[in-house]
Amino acid sequence: MKVLIIHAHPEPQSFCSAMKDTAVETLTQLGHEVKVSDLHAMNWNPVASEKDFKKRSQEDYLVYALEQREGFKHGQLADDIQGELEKLQWCDVLIFNFPMYWFSVPAILKGWIDRVFVSGYCYGGKRFYDQGGLKGKKGMLAFTLGGREHMFGEDAIHGDMNTILRPILRGAMAYVGLTVLPPFIGWHVPYISQEERTALLESYKDRLKNLDSLQALEFPVLSDYDDTMRRINK
Amino acid sequence: MKVLIIHAHPEPQSFCSAMKDTAVETLTQLGHEVKVSDLHAMNWNPVASEKDFKKRSQEDYLVYALEQREGFKHGQLADDIQGELEKLQWCDVLIFNFPMYWFSVPAILKGWIDRVFVSGYCYGGKRFYDQGGLKGKKGMLAFTLGGREHMFGEDAIHGDMNTILRPILRGAMAYVGLTVLPPFIGWHVPYISQEERTALLESYKDRLKNLDSLQALEFPVLSDYDDTMRRINK
Repeated sequence: MKVLIIHAHPEPQSFCSAMKDTAVETLTQLGHEVKVSDLHAMNWNPVASEKDFKKRSQEDYLVYALEQREGFKHGQLADDIQGELEKLQWCDVLIFNFPMYWFSVPAILKGWIDRVFVSGYCYGGKRFYDQGGLKGKKGMLAFTLGGREHMFGEDAIHGDMNTILRPILRGAMAYVGLTVLPPFIGWHVPYISQEERTALLESYKDRLKNLDSLQALEFPVLSDYDDTMRRINK
Repeated sequence: MKVLIIHAHPEPQSFCSAMKDTAVETLTQLGHEVKVSDLHAMNWNPVASEKDFKKRSQEDYLVYALEQREGFKHGQLADDIQGELEKLQWCDVLIFNFPMYWFSVPAILKGWIDRVFVSGYCYGGKRFYDQGGLKGKKGMLAFTLGGREHMFGEDAIHGDMNTILRPILRGAMAYVGLTVLPPFIGWHVPYISQEERTALLESYKDRLKNLDSLQALEFPVLSDYDDTMRRINK
């Protein structure tokens, strides 16, 4: 398999960065090909703007998704976007590796999604969810957070984690057609012992060795909805 | 009232930018004071990094939230963060005005939250949700999207909008103690007529005139949870 890891932690010595290194090592040993985009090291620009297009379809009024479609079609996307897009096209598995900030991804990673999940390739028209442009590829989140596992769940103060993750799991990954694997979560990372960290990395290795046998999460299937996108089969 | 609008659209002529202008005009006419942070115009840097602190507490290993606490305490936050933080401290009402990207805020706005909602002032220890550092202030989202209203809801393909917005409404705004007002949503904006756009701006004016009488959304109250953050009263 070809695996693309998008890594978004500002501290190279962090546990989150160790998770990225562990993934590269483990997956390579298993015979997979791995590419890493280390967004902080690349000085990645996360801001979607008119500068993202070498030539614009409409010079006087920016419609970002329209320019993405035209830019993709005519090879006019900015070089940094084009570079990441080629890695995305190349891969079979996409892993977002990050520290959770505000119950979501850090801005630098959000901006990778905003700019690289281009309209016209990743989605467009009725190509979304199970019909999305990245159909056939897999996606997975691997992230760390300060919170403890018992602070999440229906009866816990922050509520259910998969519900919190909905914009990224369903609204981004599933939306573009990825088969979404369950997230790998490093709970309470800043506060755990060295032994617990080692055990967590071992657990992540096990996860990476079993990517093929994981049960994917379930998301909308277009054939269950009518033309107005209301559910037909309840 | 003192109102701070964080505006995050890359096109000054956009409908979303017109919403920002309408808010400034309407609120000023009502006698309120208004400040705007136009993130694209400011060339706002959304990336949280070690450069955010003039002097670091730990030079050799970046723990971002720790440096936020120390930087806030000792006046060592980067100038751009300090400037936004002072506006945040000044305001009674915080409005995020943005186009929805990937069922969330654009990266440039996510990075405002990541960098300006500093630990030590906005939250920390058991100061979160109803005990958060911004207790007493109000928060509201005002955003545009391409989707139609009927594509959202329990039986619609994208599911319930307030659930989609949970990371921002609950995980960011309510978490830091803001009283969160219902979002103002400009549905299907790229595709509606000029008349519909005018009506939508009128509707937004009405909303702004009635900020005081709006029923706030409900979020966790710490006294309903035990020390492990599991719910006591069901």
